[in-house]
Amino acid sequence: MTTASTPISRDFASDNTAGAHPAVMAALTRANTGTSPAYGNDPWTSRIEDKFSKLFDHDVAVALVATGTAANALAIASVTPPWGAVLTHSESHVSDDECGAPEFFADGAKLVSLVGIGNKLDPDTLQERLSRMPDGVLRQVQPACLSITQATEAGQVYTPAQIKALADIAHARGMMVHMDGARFANAIAHLGCTPAQATWHSGVDILTFGGTKNGAWAAEAVIFFDKAKARQLPWRAKRAGQILSKGRFLAAQWDALLENDLWLSLARHANTMARLLGTGLATVPGLRLGWEVQANEVFALMPQPVWQKLEAVGYPLRDWSSQFLPAQVQLGTGERLIRLVCSFATTPEDVAALIAAAAQREPVSH
Amino acid sequence: MTTASTPISRDFASDNTAGAHPAVMAALTRANTGTSPAYGNDPWTSRIEDKFSKLFDHDVAVALVATGTAANALAIASVTPPWGAVLTHSESHVSDDECGAPEFFADGAKLVSLVGIGNKLDPDTLQERLSRMPDGVLRQVQPACLSITQATEAGQVYTPAQIKALADIAHARGMMVHMDGARFANAIAHLGCTPAQATWHSGVDILTFGGTKNGAWAAEAVIFFDKAKARQLPWRAKRAGQILSKGRFLAAQWDALLENDLWLSLARHANTMARLLGTGLATVPGLRLGWEVQANEVFALMPQPVWQKLEAVGYPLRDWSSQFLPAQVQLGTGERLIRLVCSFATTPEDVAALIAAAAQREPVSH
Amino acid sequence: MTTASTPISRDFASDNTAGAHPAVMAALTRANTGTSPAYGNDPWTSRIEDKFSKLFDHDVAVALVATGTAANALAIASVTPPWGAVLTHSESHVSDDECGAPEFFADGAKLVSLVGIGNKLDPDTLQERLSRMPDGVLRQVQPACLSITQATEAGQVYTPAQIKALADIAHARGMMVHMDGARFANAIAHLGCTPAQATWHSGVDILTFGGTKNGAWAAEAVIFFDKAKARQLPWRAKRAGQILSKGRFLAAQWDALLENDLWLSLARHANTMARLLGTGLATVPGLRLGWEVQANEVFALMPQPVWQKLEAVGYPLRDWSSQFLPAQVQLGTGERLIRLVCSFATTPEDVAALIAAAAQREPVSH
Amino acid sequence: MTTASTPISRDFASDNTAGAHPAVMAALTRANTGTSPAYGNDPWTSRIEDKFSKLFDHDVAVALVATGTAANALAIASVTPPWGAVLTHSESHVSDDECGAPEFFADGAKLVSLVGIGNKLDPDTLQERLSRMPDGVLRQVQPACLSITQATEAGQVYTPAQIKALADIAHARGMMVHMDGARFANAIAHLGCTPAQATWHSGVDILTFGGTKNGAWAAEAVIFFDKAKARQLPWRAKRAGQILSKGRFLAAQWDALLENDLWLSLARHANTMARLLGTGLATVPGLRLGWEVQANEVFALMPQPVWQKLEAVGYPLRDWSSQFLPAQVQLGTGERLIRLVCSFATTPEDVAALIAAAAQREPVSH
Repeated sequence: MTTASTPISRDFASDNTAGAHPAVMAALTRANTGTSPAYGNDPWTSRIEDKFSKLFDHDVAVALVATGTAANALAIASVTPPWGAVLTHSESHVSDDECGAPEFFADGAKLVSLVGIGNKLDPDTLQERLSRMPDGVLRQVQPACLSITQATEAGQVYTPAQIKALADIAHARGMMVHMDGARFANAIAHLGCTPAQATWHSGVDILTFGGTKNGAWAAEAVIFFDKAKARQLPWRAKRAGQILSKGRFLAAQWDALLENDLWLSLARHANTMARLLGTGLATVPGLRLGWEVQANEVFALMPQPVWQKLEAVGYPLRDWSSQFLPAQVQLGTGERLIRLVCSFATTPEDVAALIAAAAQREPVSH
Repeated sequence: MTTASTPISRDFASDNTAGAHPAVMAALTRANTGTSPAYGNDPWTSRIEDKFSKLFDHDVAVALVATGTAANALAIASVTPPWGAVLTHSESHVSDDECGAPEFFADGAKLVSLVGIGNKLDPDTLQERLSRMPDGVLRQVQPACLSITQATEAGQVYTPAQIKALADIAHARGMMVHMDGARFANAIAHLGCTPAQATWHSGVDILTFGGTKNGAWAAEAVIFFDKAKARQLPWRAKRAGQILSKGRFLAAQWDALLENDLWLSLARHANTMARLLGTGLATVPGLRLGWEVQANEVFALMPQPVWQKLEAVGYPLRDWSSQFLPAQVQLGTGERLIRLVCSFATTPEDVAALIAAAAQREPVSH
Repeated sequence: MTTASTPISRDFASDNTAGAHPAVMAALTRANTGTSPAYGNDPWTSRIEDKFSKLFDHDVAVALVATGTAANALAIASVTPPWGAVLTHSESHVSDDECGAPEFFADGAKLVSLVGIGNKLDPDTLQERLSRMPDGVLRQVQPACLSITQATEAGQVYTPAQIKALADIAHARGMMVHMDGARFANAIAHLGCTPAQATWHSGVDILTFGGTKNGAWAAEAVIFFDKAKARQLPWRAKRAGQILSKGRFLAAQWDALLENDLWLSLARHANTMARLLGTGLATVPGLRLGWEVQANEVFALMPQPVWQKLEAVGYPLRDWSSQFLPAQVQLGTGERLIRLVCSFATTPEDVAALIAAAAQREPVSH
Repeated sequence: MTTASTPISRDFASDNTAGAHPAVMAALTRANTGTSPAYGNDPWTSRIEDKFSKLFDHDVAVALVATGTAANALAIASVTPPWGAVLTHSESHVSDDECGAPEFFADGAKLVSLVGIGNKLDPDTLQERLSRMPDGVLRQVQPACLSITQATEAGQVYTPAQIKALADIAHARGMMVHMDGARFANAIAHLGCTPAQATWHSGVDILTFGGTKNGAWAAEAVIFFDKAKARQLPWRAKRAGQILSKGRFLAAQWDALLENDLWLSLARHANTMARLLGTGLATVPGLRLGWEVQANEVFALMPQPVWQKLEAVGYPLRDWSSQFLPAQVQLGTGERLIRLVCSFATTPEDVAALIAAAAQREPVSH
């Protein structure tokens, strides 16, 4: 991915800290030729629905936007009335990390929080909550959308069967199923199934497919598997200031990612790096993993001496302890839950360096 | 600007149809190195407030976003309560071309439409309208913001004195003054004054400074001259999905535009091309200009034979007749008001070709 | 209506300044017996749809609310998406007197202002404006609702034919037609037609039928002639805090108004008083009427000596000059447009006293 | 309260099922004299702030509205920005029974759900949740308002000390404290303290004081103890259609309730009836009380034979089992949690009849 001379990176804080993949830059350079109609009427954007339709083996409606927050909020708002409820994990990105964007875009709709291990929802919890939201009772918001995250914020991946079990319950109540796929590529890389199997085969109605964490500058796709449900989408996107005038800029990034399944190669690489990292860290004395490494995130329960020496040598660590802890975990004194994220740009050398630093017996001097 | 071998462009439909300037692409390539903190905590974004503060000779607060619609709507929403009124020209971009984005971002505030020649507002009209919106009368929305466009949608430019006359009236009512500067660069190029003189010297409180029409892929800056008024801005931007995770992408584009005043050189070029075009077209028999060419737009009242032969050779013409007509103008039979826009990418050869095509006696065969 | 001993009232400021009609109080007293289910599940509310269905000779859906602003805003919001446009007179109540309530209830939709004599819209103006709002153009809000006022704020009444001409244009664009009938009773009293003829026969889809200005404490009905369009109504009403827990309170007021067409008798009385008043005032030297008296409002262009002597003897006059002036009217020095409103409680003696006071040669001492 | 000849009422479904108290009707009749200025400029409304200021021994700002949902939502919206969080019990009325009204009025703000026994919040839970919502973190909504219910939906009453403990935590984070006092009167009747002690003495910033459940037709007061915080209130109320044109109607109801502390006498009566009822039911074999009876609500865990025979003789029972159960309670087979509410209109005879019916060995014939 990078040449031998690339300096070691100590940045595992997020998959958003990398820049754009060279293929994305090359696609932008190629697209930067001549004039083309503005506001998505350019040839690049015009071709993108076909490309996604092929990828998903299904006729889809697509909107390209610049941020994951916009993508999620537009998806949810398109199928949730103001008096609708969006059922989602209490620590999902839409619920906890978007400053109320879904509520804003959906004109004051309510997000109803559910709990679940590894930030995954399970059918019983969903069913139980829905049983307390009867149809047509005017004093309560009405279930309109189920939003799940694939892979979750804890790096866990739903199997197609798990998705289907949730989707069946939602559909039985007339709800739409939204998948926040900011790390959808990493989930597919883990599952080894087709994008179709993990989405509409399993009952997903709308996917926000993330490109930004996976090699783009800023390129997210909102994908509707039922085109009829996408009618509100362009209007909502326009009035949210989400339709770029030079639309080819967004489409060209996706061109690069879709070409020869680059999106999948990059995600596989990130996942591989994360697995390497998790395996290596698990050998550090006193260090435990919070969850199995499935996608590109490693959650490490680090004793104080470990995270201190990592910080001492310049690793910017993100303490996740107050965000969410694995079930049954009690942090020891000084212990912290540290999130480490690998991206397309992470190298085996970066991973090895981090493991070595964590495994060192004595705090390094600096 | 372009090499001799560049093919002639027939695209004068918009300044959004060009791609990004080579310097912008170069800046992106430079910025695409290593990792950097996400969500605007990168070094590029951190430096951008200083750069704009220097440019405007004033300590400013800045938010970078990807679209002009978002920039305008965020600016307006930051200073307009839901029961507030935004006074603006009935054919301004915020009123007529953003699908209600200001109303959305400002939680249902009202845009109050005013008329004015060349899409410019004049003090008497503003004063008269305000006299019918008394302070504290509960049944009426309350004047909160004056929004003017510089240069206007009709390519007309306010002088600093004209801005000040409007701003004084607005300030006397406790309103904030917003300038939609999607073509601010073109206005400054026309006025020959400093950015400071045309903004805070003249009473502008918030400027949305457009980069996209002027050489960027997608880069707009919301600039608050009173930093205290900008407190809502980050929250509103975040929940509108307008804060890019890889923030350096936006800042790097502005780096390129601000470097050696590239923004001004590009705008001057576009204005020069428009002036050339206007002067040339005015010599075509039967053709009149709707307004004086001041910025980078030419509004040509074209007899039917002229626009027909231009379309015949492939010019994508935008008929503006139903949008707005110059005062006192009555269209003759078949006559149309055609908007022609020049950008940084327009060449003298493009201009000459258009003039020649318009001036040709007989419809060309094709 | 009142006994001989009633003191003379000098209050012509509004038809909201009277209290409730005795029959309304009696109905409330009758309804105040025993317990009944809350939130509109009481027998009074249950019967109200049938009663209105009979009155309008049509199967209707009804919501009862406490204010006209809520009634209008709920009606409009139920058929207007956030990116929709509501075309209405620039000085209609929904546009100018409800502090942006329609924008709030309709999640930021836009009210598009039209002009028209006597606050009435005409088909040409509507047609012309719609021609500048093409279908499906993403940068513009989309025409969703036409809102007309019957009788208008200037006391003018649309004929069924005039309504139909407007409704036909609106329906051709897929818009719904809303009638703000805060003074619908007065309009019907003037027209002498049936409620059906002035509404669904003429293309009205939703009526807000005012009871408050016509003898109730607080009782407005939102009436959908197409029940399928009313599906959003209960949800929007609930989340707007517009569903009273003791719902029989609202229904009982309407019981009184609908019993033996009391609503019509009261409106006829108010109109008669207004006609008397207008005729009398027109004989005062120097005084002109702004518009023909059709409903229960008199708009008098009063020379300064006249309004001064009225104020001197305690008439609380509402100066309408800055609100709207009849077409072609130029106010003389000191002249004012004064609105005088008659209600169910206005007596012939009240009217005679006002005329006498206005006609008096010399300012009275006080 | 009622004469011996009043028929026995079997309606314990809600305190909203009674009509208005005779004193309220009398006050309305008295107020229904002559004309008075509309929209709250009448003498009744003008005096109401003074009356509440005396009652609370504090200079307060007041808005009168017709529903509790509107009162709560206006209170919350006045102090919560769109990106603000309202911390409240997961089963509070604002969170679970108002169809998203707070979210609507507060332009898409988020309600954050907390758990607590008897629907009361405790300081530790609040503190813990706040610790996960750090100041100024852009991806998260910001704590703006704490909303507690007095008495709670489970009929439990906070002591002034308990309120203060919560308020101190909220104030330390710059939040405002809102008290949903739909049953504030019942809480005061239980506590035996002054209204001042249970509100601003204890850190409450805004109270919604319920009149409707306590003898009014429709009369709720939003009371700001810091008048400066009430500035948004009139505008929000107006654009929500919550300002009645005949404002004296609302104020006159409060006149009746405030006269000689009728509000307190009525609440004491309702509480006494509830205590009687609870004590009597607790003697029925197999029947347990869910919570101590503190205000006017009794929550009875009824074995199947008991609720069946009550239903058989015509009691409309509300099954609360799926709403919320007391901590540690497991329902036996067929057992249900039944809510029984007493109001000003409940008589000792009504209570005795219910107890007798529940205690009867065999299902009564009917």
